[in-house]
Amino acid sequence: MSDSCQRRPIAVTIGDPAGVGPEVAAGAWAARRKHDLPPFVVIGDAAAIEAVWDGPVARVGEMDEVAAAFETALPVWHLEDSGPLTPGSPTPAGAALALHALETGIGLTRNQAAAALVTGPVSKHALHGIGYTHPGQTEFIAERCGVTATNAVMMLAGPGLRVVPLTVHIPLAQVPERLTSELIVAKARIVARGLARDFGIATPRLAIAGLNPHAGENGQLGDEEGRIIAPAVAQLAEEGIAVDGPLAADALFAPGIRDGYAAILCGYHDQALAPFKALHFHDGVNLTLGLPIIRTSPDHGTAFNIAGTGRADAGPTIAAIAMAARMAAARERSCAPAK
Amino acid sequence: MSDSCQRRPIAVTIGDPAGVGPEVAAGAWAARRKHDLPPFVVIGDAAAIEAVWDGPVARVGEMDEVAAAFETALPVWHLEDSGPLTPGSPTPAGAALALHALETGIGLTRNQAAAALVTGPVSKHALHGIGYTHPGQTEFIAERCGVTATNAVMMLAGPGLRVVPLTVHIPLAQVPERLTSELIVAKARIVARGLARDFGIATPRLAIAGLNPHAGENGQLGDEEGRIIAPAVAQLAEEGIAVDGPLAADALFAPGIRDGYAAILCGYHDQALAPFKALHFHDGVNLTLGLPIIRTSPDHGTAFNIAGTGRADAGPTIAAIAMAARMAAARERSCAPAK
Repeated sequence: MSDSCQRRPIAVTIGDPAGVGPEVAAGAWAARRKHDLPPFVVIGDAAAIEAVWDGPVARVGEMDEVAAAFETALPVWHLEDSGPLTPGSPTPAGAALALHALETGIGLTRNQAAAALVTGPVSKHALHGIGYTHPGQTEFIAERCGVTATNAVMMLAGPGLRVVPLTVHIPLAQVPERLTSELIVAKARIVARGLARDFGIATPRLAIAGLNPHAGENGQLGDEEGRIIAPAVAQLAEEGIAVDGPLAADALFAPGIRDGYAAILCGYHDQALAPFKALHFHDGVNLTLGLPIIRTSPDHGTAFNIAGTGRADAGPTIAAIAMAARMAAARERSCAPAK
Repeated sequence: MSDSCQRRPIAVTIGDPAGVGPEVAAGAWAARRKHDLPPFVVIGDAAAIEAVWDGPVARVGEMDEVAAAFETALPVWHLEDSGPLTPGSPTPAGAALALHALETGIGLTRNQAAAALVTGPVSKHALHGIGYTHPGQTEFIAERCGVTATNAVMMLAGPGLRVVPLTVHIPLAQVPERLTSELIVAKARIVARGLARDFGIATPRLAIAGLNPHAGENGQLGDEEGRIIAPAVAQLAEEGIAVDGPLAADALFAPGIRDGYAAILCGYHDQALAPFKALHFHDGVNLTLGLPIIRTSPDHGTAFNIAGTGRADAGPTIAAIAMAARMAAARERSCAPAK
């Protein structure tokens, strides 16, 4: 990224040091020229990277050392030694390091020493074992940023498609009662604002999927479209947000239809993520809108089963770093005073 | 299709004559050499085709005239004149012709004069206007074949993916109560048998998607996986059917995972059709397993808004005819006595 707006490095947290986080971060650095990646620094434990990677590591103590170091070595902001490490076997010390890296990454991004935060994969199970009580990293980041978790909106973004699940990790049976007009309006506003500020899309057009097959077929296959979604669409239109819906969720993902929208908002997890992963399994990025900071992450877990084998694909981390950089550049442009 | 098993023509019903059915059937004939299509005959109204197409039409009165006529003209089994026709404007006479074509096509396929049935798009609204009471064509075909509608299993098939929605046109809120172990077992058996008989896959491996996000995450996000799906999978495995599940529906559609299955069975309409249409909008085929006859159809509607303009894509009809031909060849092979 040669954009002049983009000078501060990107902070990449290591995630669980026993997972694939260390090796995919190193893999992204190795591919920095091919993918024109901007300077980034891994927040974590240098030894955890050296344990699974033979390339050059540069320990940095100040963010302004990162850009120069980045040319010839992977810059690492070394926090602490996470102890004896066996890839694939998470430990309490590793979970503590992952959490410390996350806290540090948030801090560096909040105080603008870093341009954006890219979070590596953590083990919820290992984190819960050391007393962490948040369901995932997003809720923790939102809290540290002073944002309620419901206002931190999950988006999956790939080269050809952006989707937002309006409800996320709840049983399917609860979806019809949890999907309300208020929820749709609140999240759609955050999405529209985020697309303008972080993606440079001045007037993004949003689609809202129907909840039922064929978007309810005029009420014959369910009434949520008329009762919940249509009023939300009317409210958003009144606010000047370009939005279509409710639209039949299957046809909506067809090429030529999906291409007409900056984002597709879906009623529930699989309605959004199944078509998204069918199209963008290797280059999909998970990001959070509604935060004061830019936050992306590779859309995969710790993959303990292959950690340390060299089989992990750095592609999603590369995509997450590249997207964070583009978002940071767009935000700087949108915030810059006119000259 | 040069397979010697494949001698009888395929019956293609015209669908509603005011829809795109006539022009896509003609378009498929025009592309017969490029796609190596076997002889087929359109069941319907020759005048409705001539109204929207300038190519040669040959009216045939016997099925054994089709193959010879097919070389130089589109064979049409002319049933009756459906009256004055304006593309895009359905009429009762047109609906009656569509229904008559469907009945005739079923009869020709049932008595083995035709190798397979490909149904053109009809207007449910127009059909209901003349007293038709079935929800769609599939239920009518099942009834005429002496099969209960629940045993006629809808599958969407494309070059890279086959999906089956275990529940279809019901509100999402009813899905958790309608998805039962018995339903899964009954439909999976029909799918396994259909893949063996009509696709030549001796031991098809099936995947069954979880109902909830992440397949319920060990019961934390819903209990249907353990209570309903897992017992069905165990029962099917006991019967010797190769089946995996419940599997997280989003990851399941990723390339490399979906490729490992002959078919993916989903809990509900959009879980199956949204990822399917994301991948196979132009070459997806809708087919019915569990019938004594082979039946496919292009996966689109009458498209009254573009009928007669020449903009309709014959691709889905071509795909439906080609797939019907392959299925007929596979079925003949599997039924042929050993020599």
